[in-house]
Amino acid sequence: MTLVHAEAVKNTKSVAVVRRESFVIPGILVSVASSGMRYKGRPDLALIVSEDPNGIPAAGVFTKNLFTAAPVIVSKHHIEQKADHIRAILINAGIANACTGEEGIRRARRSAELVAKALGVPLESVLVASTGVIGPQIDVDLIASYMDELLNGLAPNRWHEAAQAIMTTDTVPKLAYAEIEINGTRIKIGGIAKGSGMIAPNMATMLGFLCTDAFIESSLLNQFLRYAVSRSFNAITVDGDTSTNDTVFLLASGKSGITIKDNDSDSCRKFLDALEAVSIDLSRQIVMDGEGATKFIEIQVVGASTEEDAKKVAKTVAESPLVKTAFYGEDANWGRIVAAVGRSGVNISPQAVSLFFNDVCVFRDGMPINDQKTEEMANAEFKKKHINVRISVGSGNATFRMWTCDLSHDYVTINAKYRT
Amino acid sequence: MTLVHAEAVKNTKSVAVVRRESFVIPGILVSVASSGMRYKGRPDLALIVSEDPNGIPAAGVFTKNLFTAAPVIVSKHHIEQKADHIRAILINAGIANACTGEEGIRRARRSAELVAKALGVPLESVLVASTGVIGPQIDVDLIASYMDELLNGLAPNRWHEAAQAIMTTDTVPKLAYAEIEINGTRIKIGGIAKGSGMIAPNMATMLGFLCTDAFIESSLLNQFLRYAVSRSFNAITVDGDTSTNDTVFLLASGKSGITIKDNDSDSCRKFLDALEAVSIDLSRQIVMDGEGATKFIEIQVVGASTEEDAKKVAKTVAESPLVKTAFYGEDANWGRIVAAVGRSGVNISPQAVSLFFNDVCVFRDGMPINDQKTEEMANAEFKKKHINVRISVGSGNATFRMWTCDLSHDYVTINAKYRT
Repeated sequence: MTLVHAEAVKNTKSVAVVRRESFVIPGILVSVASSGMRYKGRPDLALIVSEDPNGIPAAGVFTKNLFTAAPVIVSKHHIEQKADHIRAILINAGIANACTGEEGIRRARRSAELVAKALGVPLESVLVASTGVIGPQIDVDLIASYMDELLNGLAPNRWHEAAQAIMTTDTVPKLAYAEIEINGTRIKIGGIAKGSGMIAPNMATMLGFLCTDAFIESSLLNQFLRYAVSRSFNAITVDGDTSTNDTVFLLASGKSGITIKDNDSDSCRKFLDALEAVSIDLSRQIVMDGEGATKFIEIQVVGASTEEDAKKVAKTVAESPLVKTAFYGEDANWGRIVAAVGRSGVNISPQAVSLFFNDVCVFRDGMPINDQKTEEMANAEFKKKHINVRISVGSGNATFRMWTCDLSHDYVTINAKYRT
Repeated sequence: MTLVHAEAVKNTKSVAVVRRESFVIPGILVSVASSGMRYKGRPDLALIVSEDPNGIPAAGVFTKNLFTAAPVIVSKHHIEQKADHIRAILINAGIANACTGEEGIRRARRSAELVAKALGVPLESVLVASTGVIGPQIDVDLIASYMDELLNGLAPNRWHEAAQAIMTTDTVPKLAYAEIEINGTRIKIGGIAKGSGMIAPNMATMLGFLCTDAFIESSLLNQFLRYAVSRSFNAITVDGDTSTNDTVFLLASGKSGITIKDNDSDSCRKFLDALEAVSIDLSRQIVMDGEGATKFIEIQVVGASTEEDAKKVAKTVAESPLVKTAFYGEDANWGRIVAAVGRSGVNISPQAVSLFFNDVCVFRDGMPINDQKTEEMANAEFKKKHINVRISVGSGNATFRMWTCDLSHDYVTINAKYRT
């Protein structure tokens, strides 16, 4: 499958217009409830249900952390069993159900069972996701007592409430939506996400729920999701920590009547671009809501031998505390970026490396451009809220783009003081 | 060579008593001068010279950063040529001579040449080391004008001044010294080091200079140094950034009349333990002088399949911003440590992982110990200045120990505000 196309690095927003507002995906209903399991006076449960009683195709991408949370273990198993017949996703915020042992798995399964019984579908047709504190068990009886409210409240237009219900340390709900036209029909793609630090204080973090009304069978849907996630949710970093619960699901209701099957067709490419654009937009919202973040930084590595190399360089730069504090201090400190490139483990020739801050070249062919004017221009760029750092490593044609934020006093305050 | 012995993880201080004070290594002379190249009114040049006109065995360990600074390139070449006949090391602080191109290499070579000519030895018998700002060229004429002062000032007892002369953002000079007895003769091992952040603000950082009066030919000396560095200078991290200039040298004057040649002998083991102890002590001083550090943290991983695995886990935990801010906040946050273990890339069984803060077990066999008393005890340990974190991963017998510090508001302040 050749999903990796040459323009992957360019801003896909030019392809699909992404709107950050609530939406409706035909064939999908949403509901929320306030159980008070950990947060009081706000919704903390969300239920996403397909109208089709037989369920619809779904795909999932899960954390690689070995301390996999119970809902991840359960959902992985369920999606393997019923990838083309998923009926619902139940989400709770506040307690992550991670490091909870066998009992945690039993509880995750029992919570899925509540939904499965209510909808009259097999247990494996229900997925679950949790976010919140690591350690404590979820209260399944409490969830059970809100099941009627969740089912009665199902409606197509409650995505904004759902985006609020899944928040933990997030300060704003995150939604993104795009439409494309395939064979004269409007196809809808929408999603919600949460996650402000990669792990917020003792929180298990990043969740994303994407839906479309195209019909795409699960194995192709799975490839689409992996492609989009690798360029969006897996291309952001706040502090390099990945959580026990990270999960992104994609559901395809098929309600539009349009089927996408040939993975090399025009309609496939259109869909994929829009899916990528929605995923990137949600990812950017997560970075911008990063703990203590004052700046949004794009690290773009070009001219690498392989995409993997480009990603390694981008990740090393994006996660360097020295680089991140320099952004916070508005100090156009190319030395720290160059030093991070040099220790990334990627074999490059220092003489071939050049570095740009937005359009200002500060380092060319392994040497700094040491003049007053360049330094002034570079420092001016560092005063901006959005900074693009382009690193050309001169060994090939592969590229990767990553998003991160700065490391501020507030990051330290938030993370040092959380539990006290 | 079987230098890795089972007790590597235990505190080697029990073997050799390390003193943090000035010392004398017979056969080695030291001098300093204040050139004012970047710092005013303090020594910024140091010269280490062997009394033996033919030079002595030396070994070096260098940064793996691809943006290798000019003095590293030059010294690597020289030590390859004259490993058993090194006569001198010239060090300057303030300017790193990194990212300085061909001209930087010419200048590093010319500065070595000044010393070689004065001492009447081949160019390759002189090593050079620089630390300071990345980008600018060093002023070789300025160094030349201080050559007489450096040579005339050579004396056996100026190590404390030399430790001061190599400082950049360091707040204290760093010395360590130990003696061992071999066949009734006292053997001396002493060293100085500098480096407060791994890269201080735009600074190229970690330098170490170790000397002994044992005779050890260069190839064995090289193995000894690599072993000691892997357990000391390469087992510390302040912010995970490694610099363009990191270098550790070891010189063996032979003046004691004792030769160490069999790498499996008792005397070899004694020497190696002492060398490791001195190196560890210098490394700890670097961590304790880490930028903004308020706490000294030991991360000890036990029960790994391989030492490499143990190191990977230790490094992931030691470099996690979330873990480091938790130490700063005195928050015994086991969840962040467990999450870091789980994302380290090492294949372990979560059910086999246990975690101790000093002697308090907070997490056993993949599950937290959720009682009030444990939490109180753990929080009490986190109030201490030195905290040992022991992570047992239950897959084998390999161990690794790493030292780090916390991530404080001051770290952000120092690194955000350096150039402004």
